Amino acid sequence: VAKLDFWYEFASPYSYPAAMRIERLAKATDVVVAWRPFLLGPVFRAQGFNDSPFNLHRAKGEYMWRDLTRVCEIEGLEFMRPAHFPQKSVVAARLALLLDEAARPEFSRAVYLAEFAEGEDIAKREVLEGILQRLGYDAAALLANAGEPAIKEKLRVETAEAERLGIFGTPSFVLESGELFWGNDRLEQALARAIR
Amino acid sequence: VAKLDFWYEFASPYSYPAAMRIERLAKATDVVVAWRPFLLGPVFRAQGFNDSPFNLHRAKGEYMWRDLTRVCEIEGLEFMRPAHFPQKSVVAARLALLLDEAARPEFSRAVYLAEFAEGEDIAKREVLEGILQRLGYDAAALLANAGEPAIKEKLRVETAEAERLGIFGTPSFVLESGELFWGNDRLEQALARAIR
Repeated sequence: VAKLDFWYEFASPYSYPAAMRIERLAKATDVVVAWRPFLLGPVFRAQGFNDSPFNLHRAKGEYMWRDLTRVCEIEGLEFMRPAHFPQKSVVAARLALLLDEAARPEFSRAVYLAEFAEGEDIAKREVLEGILQRLGYDAAALLANAGEPAIKEKLRVETAEAERLGIFGTPSFVLESGELFWGNDRLEQALARAIR
Repeated sequence: VAKLDFWYEFASPYSYPAAMRIERLAKATDVVVAWRPFLLGPVFRAQGFNDSPFNLHRAKGEYMWRDLTRVCEIEGLEFMRPAHFPQKSVVAARLALLLDEAARPEFSRAVYLAEFAEGEDIAKREVLEGILQRLGYDAAALLANAGEPAIKEKLRVETAEAERLGIFGTPSFVLESGELFWGNDRLEQALARAIR
C-alpha cells in the first residue's frame, strides 16, 4: 500500500482545507496517510524568519485570507478569519502526538474547525478542553500529559525531522521516496505520485 | 465579453507555464486576456524585499525548481533551470510594451521559452535580438526604441498600477472588478470567476 506523510502545523491556514480533504482523497486513491503534526515556528527561525511569511509580507498575507476564503467556498468548507494570526499551536500539537495515530485525524480536524470555521483561539486551554470533551476524551488527563517532558521531546524530534526533509511551510506531503510537495494545491499531485 | 488582465514578469518562473497556458484556457471559456508585463523588482522593494522571495527563502527556492519541473512535466512543457535567477527582465518588458497588444503574447511566450526551456539569459541583447528576428521584426529598430524615455515611463506606470492593485507576485490575474488571483495554480479559478 502506498503511503503519504502529511506534515501539518495547527496555526497554518492552508493546512485547514488539506486536513479536511486528505482522508477522502487518499481513500479514493488507496493511499495510507500518516498525520504528522509539528511546529513551523522553529523551522522558520532556523531559516532566518521570526514570524509567519504571511505577516512578514503584508500584501501576500492580505491576499492569503481572500484566497483561503475562495478555496473554502469551492471545497464547501465553513470559513471564519481568526482574530489572531498565527495562533499558538504548541499544546494542540502535543495533544495530537499524544493520541493514537488512528485518533489523530479526527482530533486534528476538530482543532482546525474551531480555529478557522468557528473563529476560536486554539491557544486557549478551554477551547482544547472543549474539543477533547466533545470527542469523548478525559480532557484533564490529556492536558496534564501534554505537559510531560516525553511528549515535548517527541514534538521537538518531529519538528527536527520536518526540517531535515526540507519542509519550509505547511501543509507538506512527503512520499516514501522523500519527495516533497508543498501546499493544499499539491495534495492531488502528491497522491498521484504516491501510487505511480 | 469577460476580460482578464494577465500581469507577468519575465523573470518569474511560474509565469512561464501561465503564459503558455492562458490563451488556450481563455479561448475555451470565451475570456479575452490583456497581457500586462511589468517589473516585480520595484514592487518587492516597495514592500521591503531586496531580492526574489525564492532567493530570500532558500528552502522554498530550492523546492520551487523541483515543483516547477513537475508542473511543466504535467503540462507537457520543456523545462531547463536557468543558470542565473532572477534574470534582468527590464529590456524584455519594454519590448513587450512596445509591441501591439495583439503581438505581445507570441513575443512573451518566445521570451519565456528562451529563458525556461532553452536556458538562455534574456538579459542578453543578442538573445532578445534573436527572438525578435525569428518573429520577423526589425530587431535593431525595436531595441533602439526600447531605450526611449516614453517606453521607460510606460513600464513605470504599469508597474505602479500593478502595485496599486495589490499585486505582490506573478503571475497574477485581475478581474474587471479588481479581484486578484495569484499564481499559475489560480488561472482556472480566475477564468471561472471572470465568466460568472
